[in-house]
Amino acid sequence: MSTDPLSSSTSGRPHVVIVGAGFAGLEAAKSLRDAPVRVTLVDRNNYHKFQPLLYEVAMAGLEPDDIAHNVRNIFQGSDTVHFRLGTVVGIDTTVQQVHLRGSAPLSYDHLILAAGAVSTDFGIPGVEEHAYPLKNVPDAVNLRNRVLRQFERYDRTRDETGDGALTFVVVGGGPTGVEMAGAFVELFDTLNDDFARFDTREQARCVLLEMEEHLLPPYEPPQREYTRQVLEARGVDVQTDTAVERVEADRVHLQGGGTIPAQTLVWAAGVKASPVAGMIDAEQAWDDRVVVNPDLTVPECPNVYAVGDMAAIEGEEGYEPQLAQVAIQSGRHAADQIQCRLRDGTPERFEYWDLGKMATIGRNAAVAEFAGGISFKGFIAWFLWVVIHIAKLVGFRNRLSALVNWAYNYFTYSRSARLILDVVPIADDVPMEEEGGQRVKERPETVETHPQ
Amino acid sequence: MSTDPLSSSTSGRPHVVIVGAGFAGLEAAKSLRDAPVRVTLVDRNNYHKFQPLLYEVAMAGLEPDDIAHNVRNIFQGSDTVHFRLGTVVGIDTTVQQVHLRGSAPLSYDHLILAAGAVSTDFGIPGVEEHAYPLKNVPDAVNLRNRVLRQFERYDRTRDETGDGALTFVVVGGGPTGVEMAGAFVELFDTLNDDFARFDTREQARCVLLEMEEHLLPPYEPPQREYTRQVLEARGVDVQTDTAVERVEADRVHLQGGGTIPAQTLVWAAGVKASPVAGMIDAEQAWDDRVVVNPDLTVPECPNVYAVGDMAAIEGEEGYEPQLAQVAIQSGRHAADQIQCRLRDGTPERFEYWDLGKMATIGRNAAVAEFAGGISFKGFIAWFLWVVIHIAKLVGFRNRLSALVNWAYNYFTYSRSARLILDVVPIADDVPMEEEGGQRVKERPETVETHPQ
Repeated sequence: MSTDPLSSSTSGRPHVVIVGAGFAGLEAAKSLRDAPVRVTLVDRNNYHKFQPLLYEVAMAGLEPDDIAHNVRNIFQGSDTVHFRLGTVVGIDTTVQQVHLRGSAPLSYDHLILAAGAVSTDFGIPGVEEHAYPLKNVPDAVNLRNRVLRQFERYDRTRDETGDGALTFVVVGGGPTGVEMAGAFVELFDTLNDDFARFDTREQARCVLLEMEEHLLPPYEPPQREYTRQVLEARGVDVQTDTAVERVEADRVHLQGGGTIPAQTLVWAAGVKASPVAGMIDAEQAWDDRVVVNPDLTVPECPNVYAVGDMAAIEGEEGYEPQLAQVAIQSGRHAADQIQCRLRDGTPERFEYWDLGKMATIGRNAAVAEFAGGISFKGFIAWFLWVVIHIAKLVGFRNRLSALVNWAYNYFTYSRSARLILDVVPIADDVPMEEEGGQRVKERPETVETHPQ
Repeated sequence: MSTDPLSSSTSGRPHVVIVGAGFAGLEAAKSLRDAPVRVTLVDRNNYHKFQPLLYEVAMAGLEPDDIAHNVRNIFQGSDTVHFRLGTVVGIDTTVQQVHLRGSAPLSYDHLILAAGAVSTDFGIPGVEEHAYPLKNVPDAVNLRNRVLRQFERYDRTRDETGDGALTFVVVGGGPTGVEMAGAFVELFDTLNDDFARFDTREQARCVLLEMEEHLLPPYEPPQREYTRQVLEARGVDVQTDTAVERVEADRVHLQGGGTIPAQTLVWAAGVKASPVAGMIDAEQAWDDRVVVNPDLTVPECPNVYAVGDMAAIEGEEGYEPQLAQVAIQSGRHAADQIQCRLRDGTPERFEYWDLGKMATIGRNAAVAEFAGGISFKGFIAWFLWVVIHIAKLVGFRNRLSALVNWAYNYFTYSRSARLILDVVPIADDVPMEEEGGQRVKERPETVETHPQ
C-alpha cells in the first residue's frame, strides 16, 4: 500500500506532478519509476493515445482501442507512480500547487508540464465552426462518423446533398495532412464496394492544400517529389502555394480568389500549445509554447519543467519541432534533471537527438529520412513505417490488435472499422461541486449541433 | 450497377423492405440474397451488433468494434440487397410505404418488421432517469465509462463520493443480469491492480436483484443452483424474490421496505417491442409486441411480417421467448414465406426449433441446456459458450479480434478495454429538412446531463 499523494507529509519522498500522459509525460513518469520520488501523473483521459495513428482511426483503418492504452495499466504494481484522472484548471507556482477541477489541489515539489498542443485556426474565419480537427480520439471518431455519414447521405438523397457532399479538403501538407489524404483515397476505394449505386472513386474527391511551395516542407526534395507524385497518381488533388482565406459550411475560400465546394474540411494545418502553458507566469512563443531554459526548466521557476509539444526549446534551427521524438526525449530529460538535482548534480542542457522522420502516403508507399543522410522511399520506407509504428504502440494487446487490423486491411483492401459510432469530445470530469453530492449521469440527453 | 430501390418502376422485381439489421432482419436479408426480389434493409445504425456480447463491452472485456459489423460489408457485391441508413418514423400499410426521417418514403411490396426491442421500466419510478440500460452499443460504452469513472472518483475524493459510489446493482436475474454480475466481480479483480490506494475487491460490491424465486428462471434447477453458487462464491450479493419499488440517484428502494445505497444501477430487467410495432394498425401484446399469425404475417396485412423480438409468436408455452435463435429462425421464415408466395405456394406456420440455451457466469463457468435434455455446467459449458459465440460473430476480423481480446484477458486476468470514451446515445440521422441544405456538424458542442 503506497502513501496518499494528496498529503506530502505522509512520505519523505519529494512529490513530482506530471501534467499530461502523452509521449512526453508518459516517458517522464516511466523514467522516474525507480527514482526516490513520488509521482502523480495527471491526465483528463484515463488513456495514453498514440497520436501518430489518430488519422488511421479517422479513416476507419484502426479502432480507437488500438491506439489508446489505459494509463493505470502501464504503472500497475508501481509504488512510485500514481495516476490521477483530472483536468488542470490552474497552477500556483508560489505555493507549488496544481489546481484540478472538482478536487483538492495537488502540492508538488517538482512539476513537469507535458500537456501537449491543441489545434489552432490562425484566426482564419470559419475554421473554428466548420473544420474537423484531429488532435484526440473523439476528434478522430467524429471525423470517421462525418465521412461515413456523408456517403450515406449522398447514397440516399443525392440530388439534395448539394455541391461538395463528397469533397473532403485536407488543409496542411505536413505528415498528418499527407497521411490523411493518402488514406482518404484508399477509403474511397473500399467504399466503392459498399455503395453499389454510384462510383465512389468518381464521385468522391480529396483535395490537399498546403500554403508553402512543397508538401512535407522539412523533407529533402526527392522525398517531397515522390510524395506528391504518389498522392496525385492515386487521385489526390494536391494544391501547394495555396492558403485558406475563410471557410463556410459548404465551401472553402482560397486566398487570392478561388473557391472549393466542400462540405467537410479537415484541419491539419496548425497547432498551438495547450492552455496549460498560459497558467504559469512565463514567456510564451508565438504559438503559446512556454519558452524554456536549456535544461527545460521554466525561467524563474527552477522546479517547473515544460516538455514536449508545449515547450519552445531552442534548437539549432529555431525551436525544436513538435514531434513524438522530441516529446519523448524532453520528457526523459526533465525526469533525469529532477533525479540529478536530488543528487545535487549540475543541470544539463537538453540536446535533441534526431533519429530521423517518416511519413506514410498509403499502401506500400512512404518516405523516411534517417540520421546520417540515409533516406528511403516506397515499399521499404512503408514497411519500416509499419514495423516501427506497431513496435511503438504501448502494450502487447494494442500491438497485436493493430497488426490484425492492418493485416486484414492490407490483404482484403478493406478498412475494417467503418462504423458510425457517436462520441462526445471529452466530457471532462464532472465537477463534484456541481454534482451537489448527487449522481450525474454521463449519458447526454441533448446534442446540440451548430446552428447554421 | 443495380437499379435504384427508390423507384419501383425501374425494376420488375418485387421490393422487400426490411426494418432492422439485428439478428432477425439480417437473416431475412441473407435468405433473400438470391431470390428474385429487390431488398432494402433499413437500420438507424450502419452496423449489425452482436447483442449477446454487449455486456462484455460494458465490462471492458471486448471493444465496441469487436461486436459491431458494418452492414454494407456483409452485402458487398450483392445486386439484390441494398442497405439504407435511416430512422423509420411511420408506416402506411394502405399505400405500402415506410416513412424515413429526412428522406423520401420507401414503397414496398413486402415488408418485414424486425426492429427488435427496447428497454422498459415497467413504470417503476426513477428507472428512466437513473438506471443504465444495455440495449445498444452506446449504452454499453456509457456504462463502461460510468463504472470506470466511479472508481476514478472514489480514488480521488473518497470521502466526498458518498455511500454506494462503488455499489453496482444489476436488476434482472436472466442471462444478461447473470452475465453482467459475473463480469462485474471479474472487473473488480482487474481494477485492484489499477488502484493501489484501496482494495477494490473489498470496497466494490455487485448486487444482483431478481424478483422471482430463482436466477435464470427458464433453466432447470441444477443449472440455476450452480449459477447462484458460483456467483455468490465469487462475491456477488444475489437477492432473489426481491423487486425494485423506486430508484433514486444514490439508492434503490425495494418493495416491502429495504434500501440499497448504490449510485449505479444497471437495468437488465425488461424489454418491450420497438416503437415501430406501434406504427402499424395491429394488435399488440402487453409488452407492445405485434401479435402475428402462425405464418408471421400481421393480421389483415398479408404482405407485412413481424419477426424477432418485436413479434408475439404463439408457441407451445405462450409467446416464444425473445432470444437470438427465435429472431434468426423467424427472420428466415418470413423470407421463405415471401419466396413461397412469389411461387404461389401456401403459407406455412412458423415452428421454433429450440436448439438450447446457454449463459456464462464468468471465467470457466457457464450453464447450457441443449435439446434432448442434455445439459452442461462449469468449464465445458463455458468452453462451448466461448466457441459458439466466437463462431457466430459476423466476419473474420471480428472473430479474430474478439478471440485476441478474450485470450489476452483470459491469460492475463485483465480486461483490456478499460477506456473512458464518451459516446452519444445514437445521434440518429440529421433530417435534411432541418439542415436547410447546409452542413450540420455532428460533433456536439454541449452535453446536458440530467438535472438532479
